[in-house]
Amino acid sequence: MRRDLYTAEHEAFRSAFRAFLDKEAVPHADAWEESGTVDRAFIRAAAENGFLGFEFDAEHGGLGIADFRYNAVMAEEVVASGTAGDTFSMQNDIIVPYLRDLTTPAQRDQWLPRFTAGDCVTALALTEPGAGSDLAGIRTTARRDGDFLVLDGAKTFITSGATCDLALVLTRTGERDGRGTSFVAVEAGTPGFERGRPLHKIGRRAQDTAELTFTGCRVPIGNIVGEPGRGLGSAIGNLPRERLSIAVSAVASAAHALGLALEHVRARVAFGAPLAELQSVRMTIAELHTEIEVVRHYVDRCVLALNAGELSAEDAAGAKYRATELQWDVVDRCLQLFGGYGYMEEYPIARIWRDARIQRIYGGSNEVMKDLVGRAVVRG
Amino acid sequence: MRRDLYTAEHEAFRSAFRAFLDKEAVPHADAWEESGTVDRAFIRAAAENGFLGFEFDAEHGGLGIADFRYNAVMAEEVVASGTAGDTFSMQNDIIVPYLRDLTTPAQRDQWLPRFTAGDCVTALALTEPGAGSDLAGIRTTARRDGDFLVLDGAKTFITSGATCDLALVLTRTGERDGRGTSFVAVEAGTPGFERGRPLHKIGRRAQDTAELTFTGCRVPIGNIVGEPGRGLGSAIGNLPRERLSIAVSAVASAAHALGLALEHVRARVAFGAPLAELQSVRMTIAELHTEIEVVRHYVDRCVLALNAGELSAEDAAGAKYRATELQWDVVDRCLQLFGGYGYMEEYPIARIWRDARIQRIYGGSNEVMKDLVGRAVVRG
Amino acid sequence: MRRDLYTAEHEAFRSAFRAFLDKEAVPHADAWEESGTVDRAFIRAAAENGFLGFEFDAEHGGLGIADFRYNAVMAEEVVASGTAGDTFSMQNDIIVPYLRDLTTPAQRDQWLPRFTAGDCVTALALTEPGAGSDLAGIRTTARRDGDFLVLDGAKTFITSGATCDLALVLTRTGERDGRGTSFVAVEAGTPGFERGRPLHKIGRRAQDTAELTFTGCRVPIGNIVGEPGRGLGSAIGNLPRERLSIAVSAVASAAHALGLALEHVRARVAFGAPLAELQSVRMTIAELHTEIEVVRHYVDRCVLALNAGELSAEDAAGAKYRATELQWDVVDRCLQLFGGYGYMEEYPIARIWRDARIQRIYGGSNEVMKDLVGRAVVRG
Amino acid sequence: MRRDLYTAEHEAFRSAFRAFLDKEAVPHADAWEESGTVDRAFIRAAAENGFLGFEFDAEHGGLGIADFRYNAVMAEEVVASGTAGDTFSMQNDIIVPYLRDLTTPAQRDQWLPRFTAGDCVTALALTEPGAGSDLAGIRTTARRDGDFLVLDGAKTFITSGATCDLALVLTRTGERDGRGTSFVAVEAGTPGFERGRPLHKIGRRAQDTAELTFTGCRVPIGNIVGEPGRGLGSAIGNLPRERLSIAVSAVASAAHALGLALEHVRARVAFGAPLAELQSVRMTIAELHTEIEVVRHYVDRCVLALNAGELSAEDAAGAKYRATELQWDVVDRCLQLFGGYGYMEEYPIARIWRDARIQRIYGGSNEVMKDLVGRAVVRG
Repeated sequence: MRRDLYTAEHEAFRSAFRAFLDKEAVPHADAWEESGTVDRAFIRAAAENGFLGFEFDAEHGGLGIADFRYNAVMAEEVVASGTAGDTFSMQNDIIVPYLRDLTTPAQRDQWLPRFTAGDCVTALALTEPGAGSDLAGIRTTARRDGDFLVLDGAKTFITSGATCDLALVLTRTGERDGRGTSFVAVEAGTPGFERGRPLHKIGRRAQDTAELTFTGCRVPIGNIVGEPGRGLGSAIGNLPRERLSIAVSAVASAAHALGLALEHVRARVAFGAPLAELQSVRMTIAELHTEIEVVRHYVDRCVLALNAGELSAEDAAGAKYRATELQWDVVDRCLQLFGGYGYMEEYPIARIWRDARIQRIYGGSNEVMKDLVGRAVVRG
Repeated sequence: MRRDLYTAEHEAFRSAFRAFLDKEAVPHADAWEESGTVDRAFIRAAAENGFLGFEFDAEHGGLGIADFRYNAVMAEEVVASGTAGDTFSMQNDIIVPYLRDLTTPAQRDQWLPRFTAGDCVTALALTEPGAGSDLAGIRTTARRDGDFLVLDGAKTFITSGATCDLALVLTRTGERDGRGTSFVAVEAGTPGFERGRPLHKIGRRAQDTAELTFTGCRVPIGNIVGEPGRGLGSAIGNLPRERLSIAVSAVASAAHALGLALEHVRARVAFGAPLAELQSVRMTIAELHTEIEVVRHYVDRCVLALNAGELSAEDAAGAKYRATELQWDVVDRCLQLFGGYGYMEEYPIARIWRDARIQRIYGGSNEVMKDLVGRAVVRG
Repeated sequence: MRRDLYTAEHEAFRSAFRAFLDKEAVPHADAWEESGTVDRAFIRAAAENGFLGFEFDAEHGGLGIADFRYNAVMAEEVVASGTAGDTFSMQNDIIVPYLRDLTTPAQRDQWLPRFTAGDCVTALALTEPGAGSDLAGIRTTARRDGDFLVLDGAKTFITSGATCDLALVLTRTGERDGRGTSFVAVEAGTPGFERGRPLHKIGRRAQDTAELTFTGCRVPIGNIVGEPGRGLGSAIGNLPRERLSIAVSAVASAAHALGLALEHVRARVAFGAPLAELQSVRMTIAELHTEIEVVRHYVDRCVLALNAGELSAEDAAGAKYRATELQWDVVDRCLQLFGGYGYMEEYPIARIWRDARIQRIYGGSNEVMKDLVGRAVVRG
Repeated sequence: MRRDLYTAEHEAFRSAFRAFLDKEAVPHADAWEESGTVDRAFIRAAAENGFLGFEFDAEHGGLGIADFRYNAVMAEEVVASGTAGDTFSMQNDIIVPYLRDLTTPAQRDQWLPRFTAGDCVTALALTEPGAGSDLAGIRTTARRDGDFLVLDGAKTFITSGATCDLALVLTRTGERDGRGTSFVAVEAGTPGFERGRPLHKIGRRAQDTAELTFTGCRVPIGNIVGEPGRGLGSAIGNLPRERLSIAVSAVASAAHALGLALEHVRARVAFGAPLAELQSVRMTIAELHTEIEVVRHYVDRCVLALNAGELSAEDAAGAKYRATELQWDVVDRCLQLFGGYGYMEEYPIARIWRDARIQRIYGGSNEVMKDLVGRAVVRG
C-alpha cells in the first residue's frame, strides 16, 4: 500500500543522499568491514554535503531542519546501500538532541561547528560492563575537585568509542541523596581517558564499538552537559527518538532483505522451476511482505508522532521491539530462501543477517521494551 | 498511539449507534444466541434509525453517505456490545455494493426501498458444498427457459440463509464458452427455493447460517444482477471490501478482548498479588497491546485506501489474514489469562473466543489469502 | 516411528476396552453432551468390566495391576471413541492414588468396594473461586468439634462435582502454626454439602463440572484422609500423575485430530485436486505429524518413568504443558484444514477443538507449569 | 529425565574422547577458525587413537564396531568442546557407509587403511552450483573413454573440499535411458581436478568448504563406487544416517548453549538481582529446557532405530528438521539472554550461534525435509 509519509522534498533529498552514498560509501564498504571502522574522510565528506547535524541552526553549520522524516530517509538509504556504518543514526538521531537541547550557548559554540564539520564525532557512553540495560545501576563516578570533575569508571559497547572526538559520559555525581547522575563531555586526548580496541562483533563490523575507561580523568566543570543530577532523566527523555531510529532502520532492513530474496527466488531454478513457483515459497513471501507493510505503516505513524512531540515512551518501545522482531524474522527467513548461498559472506544477505542480530539487543533489549510497555498498559 | 482515522462526525455517529445497540440489541443478545438468529424487530429498528443501506441515495431510503469509516464505527460498536449478529457487516458492507453498483434502475426501485426499510434482508450465496473458497468450481446452474431462468444446485454456509428475503445467487450461465457465471436474485418464497435449518456452529450463534437448495427454481430473467456471464468477476471485485470488513471487526474484537483481560488481571489476586504484577502477565499484555496497535493502524490505512478507491486485492487479502491472525492470537491468549473462568460460557471472553474462530476461515481462508498475496508480490 | 511402550497384553486390553466403549459409550455420546453428564449406567457397566479401580487389590474389587500403561491405553481409546467424559482419567488416574495410598484400612474397606462397583464416583475438591492454581491460598476450613469436623467454604471447577458420591475436600485445619491443611472425605447427602448445577462450559460437555459449597457441614473425624495437616503436600505429591494423565490424553487427541484431517484432505477436492496435493497442506501435515511423533515418544518415556517411581515434578509439569500446547496447535490447525466444515458442530473436529481448550488451563495452567520447571532448572 | 541411550561402555568412550579433544583440539580451536581448516596433525592424532573409521573391520584398521551411539557420543563431545570442525561427522557418519557398503574388496584394500590412518580425508561431492537440494538436477558428467572416465562439471559447498585426499563425486553416467548416475572416486592431484579456496562462511570456519571443478578429469574405470547408474539411489539410501548425524549434533548444541546461558543468568546481576530471578528469564529457561528434553528423547530413539536398521527416510527427515529448528530456537534465545555480550565473538555463544545457522540448510534444507515427510504421511 502506498506510503504517505514522505513529500516530494523528502524524495529529492533521498536521491541526493543516495548519490552521495553511491559515491562515497559503497566503494569503501568492504574496506570498512575489514578495518572495523568508517574512515574519517567519509565523515568529512558527509559534513561537507550537509548530512551531519542538519537540525542545528545555520550559525552552527546546520540547516535548521527538524523533521525526523529526513533522518528516516537517511536510515533507509544507508540500509539499501549495504553500508552498515552507524554514522548517521548515531550522530544525527541520537547525539543531536543532547548537543542541541541540553547544552549552554557556550557549549554549542564550542562543539556544534566542529560537529557539522565532521570534526567532532561524538559517542554516547551509557552502558557499563555488568549493567546492560539497567542504567540506574551505573557506577562510573565524577567527583568534584575545584573547577574540575574527576572521572573513574568504565563503559562498554560504546558506538564510535574507538574513534570519537568527544564522549558524553553518564556519571554518578551524587546529588539528590546520592542518586544524582550527570552527563560529562570528555574530549579525546584527555589524560586518563582510554579507549579499547574495537570489539570483535558478530556483525556491524564497519562500525567501531569499544570499551572506554576513565582513570582519574580530569575534565573542566564546564563540561557538564544538561542539568547536574538529572543525567539519567535526560537520557531517558532521549530514548524514544533513539528507539524510533532503530525501528526505522529495522523496517528498512527487512524490506531490503525481501527485495534481495525476491530477486533470488524469481531467478533460481530448482526441481525444474523457479523457486518462486513453489507454493511454500510464495506463502513465505506473502507473510514477509504483509508483515513488513503492517509494521512499516505503524513506524511511519510513529515518525509523525515524534515530529509532533507526541511519541510516548511506550509507543517508541513498542515500535523498537516490534520492528526489530520483524526485521529478524524477515532477514532470517530470507537467508533461508537463499539456501547454502545465504551462509556465504559474499552474498549480501549474509552480512545483512549478522548485522541485524544486534538490533533486538541494543537501545534497550526487547525484553526490557516489553516490560516497559506492559507496565504502562497495566497502569492504564 | 492516537488514531487519526475518525472525525468528530464519526464519533458522534458512534455515540448514537452505541445507544441504539444498548437499547435494541444488548437486552436480546442471549435470546438470539438461543434462537440462532437476530429477530426481525431489531432489523426494522435499525432501518428506522437509518443504519441499513445508508450508502444508497435518499430517494431509495438511504443517506447518500459513502464513507467506509461509518461501517468501521459500526463494526467496532457491534463487537464492543457483545452482540455477535452479522446484520450490519453482511447487509451494509457486503450486500450494498451489489445492489448499488450492479443493478438496473428498475432493480434499485424494486429492492432498495425494501432494503432500507428492513424488509429485504439479503443473502449472498456463493459457496457450495465441496467447493469452499474455490469459487471457480461452483456447479449451481441457471438455465434459460423463455423469460425465466431455472436454477438447480445448492449453496452452503450462507449467512442469513435461513431468514433472508432475497438471495443473490452465483450461478453458471454458460456464456464465454461455458465459463460464464451470473448473479440471479431469488426472492424468498419462490417455488423450488428451499432453505435448511440454521447450521449448528461453534460460535456466532446469534447469526443464522444455512444451506440453500434450488430445484427447478424459476426466476424472471429480469432478476439477473450485473452483466450476464461476468458474475464471478463482480464477486471478485467486491471481495476487497468484504475482507476489509472482516479485518476491521477482527481488530475491534482483539481490542475488546484485551480490555476485558486487563480488567481481569488488575482485579484478580493469585499467589498474593494481582495477576497484573506478574512479569509474565505484563509481558503478555505488552505483546498483545503492541500487536493490536500495529495492526490497527494498518487496517485504518486500508479503510482510507478503500474510500479513495485504492485498496488493492492483495492489500485487502493481507489485511484480512493478518487482522484475523491477530484477533485469534489475542483472544486465545486473553482467555488463557482468565484461567478456568475463561472456559465458562457465562464469561464474555468465552463467547468472544468461539465467535472469533470462523474469521480465519470465511471471506476466503487465510491460506487462500496468503496464496493470493504471494502471487501478486512474486509477480511484482 | 514404532512406539515401544506397549506389550501384547496392553494391546489385548486395548481391544477389549475399545469394544466396551463402542458398545456402552459411543451410542450415548450425544445424549451425554446434551444432558451435561455421563450417566450412571455407563459407570456401573465400566465397573462390571473391571475398568474402575483396577489398581486396587482383589479383596477390594480391583485387579492389583499398577501399570500406568493401562491408564494410557484407556486415555487413548476414550479420545479415539469421541466420547469426552472424564470418568476414567478422573477416577483411575487421579482419585485412585488418594484412596489407595493415603487411606486407613478401615477407610479402604469402606470406600474401595463401592468404588470398584461404580457406586462411589469421587470428586477431588481443590480449587476455590478466586484462587485458581494457587492451592496455598485456599480458604475452606474444617474446624474440629468433638468427633466431628465442621466444613465451611466453597470449591469450584470440580469435575464430577454435580454427580459424585464422595468428595475429597482440601481444607484448612490449622496445624503447623495455622498452615496445616487436610483432606476430608464428604459423602453426598451430608447436610450442609450443596452442589451447584453443572457449569456451562465451552466444551467437555459430557462431563459435569460444578461448584460445591460447605455450610456448617459436619463430617466424622474418621473421614480425614491422609496425615492431618499435610493435605497440600499429599495433593502436590499426586500432581505428577495427574499431569501425566493430561499429557497422555493430549497427545492422543492430537493424533486423533490429525487422522481425521488426513482423511479430509485426501478426500476433498478444491481447485481441481485433493487438498492433500497442495504443498502448503502437505507441509502442514508434515509439521503436525512430526510434532506429534516427537512429543509422543517423550510422554511415553514419562509413563515408564512414572511406573519406575522416577517421574519428577518438573518433568511431569513439562510434559503437561508441552503435550497440551502440542494438542492445541495440532487441533486448531486441523480444524483449519476442514475450512467452514470445521466450524460446524456435526463435524467431530469441532467438538475435539472446543474440548481441547481446557487442557492448557486445568491440572495447573501452562504458565504455572513453566514457572515450576524454570525454578527447578535454574536451581540446578 | 534420565536418558537411557548409553551404556557404561559408551560413557567410558566419552571420557576418553573428551580427554583427546581437550588435548588435541581445544588448544587449536582459534587457530583453525583463523586458518579456515582443521590441520592434518589433528586428523592423524584422531586416527592413531582409533577415532576414524572405527566401523571398518580390523584388517582395514577399524574396530568393527557398528553402533551409532558411539558416533552420537562423539558429536556431543565435539559440540561441548567448542571445536567446530566436521571431521568426525563427515568422515565417520557420512563417508563410512559409502566406503564400507558400496565398495569392492579391492577398493576397500586401497582406501580403508589410508582412511583409518588419517591419510584419506574424503569429501562427498553431491551439490552443484544452481541445483541445491535438488540432486536429480546435477549436471556433472562422467563420460566413458576406454578404461577411463572423463569428468566435467562443478560441485559446490563441499565439506573438506579444499583439503580432501579423495572425493566421491556424483556424476551423470547416462545408464537407464540417460537417467543413470554414478559415484566416481577422484584422488587429489588427478589432473583436471581443481579445488577452490575455502569459501568464506558466516560460521563453521574451522571446517573448510570449497568448490570443486572437473575439467576433462580422467579417472580409472575402477574408481566407480557402487553400482553404475545407481549413484543417486545410493546417495538417497545414505541420507537418513547423515540427517540423524545432524540431528544429534543439533540437540547437543542446544543443550550446550542452554548450559552456558544458565551459568550466565545465575551469575549476572541486573536491576538488583540475578537475571535468573526474573520470571521472564525463568520461563524462557523452562521452555528451552523442556524443548531440548523432548526432542532429545526422540532423537535418541532414532539412534536406536538406525542401529536396528529401522530408521525410515521420513523419520530421519523429521528428526533433522525438528532438531535443527530446536537448535536454532534455543541458541538464538540463549544469545539474547547474554545481551550485548552475546554479540561479541569472544563469547562462545556468539560462535555457537553463527555455526548453528547452516544446520537448517545443509543435509537437505528443512523445507525439503518437510515436503518429504508430508508426502510420506499423505501417502499413508
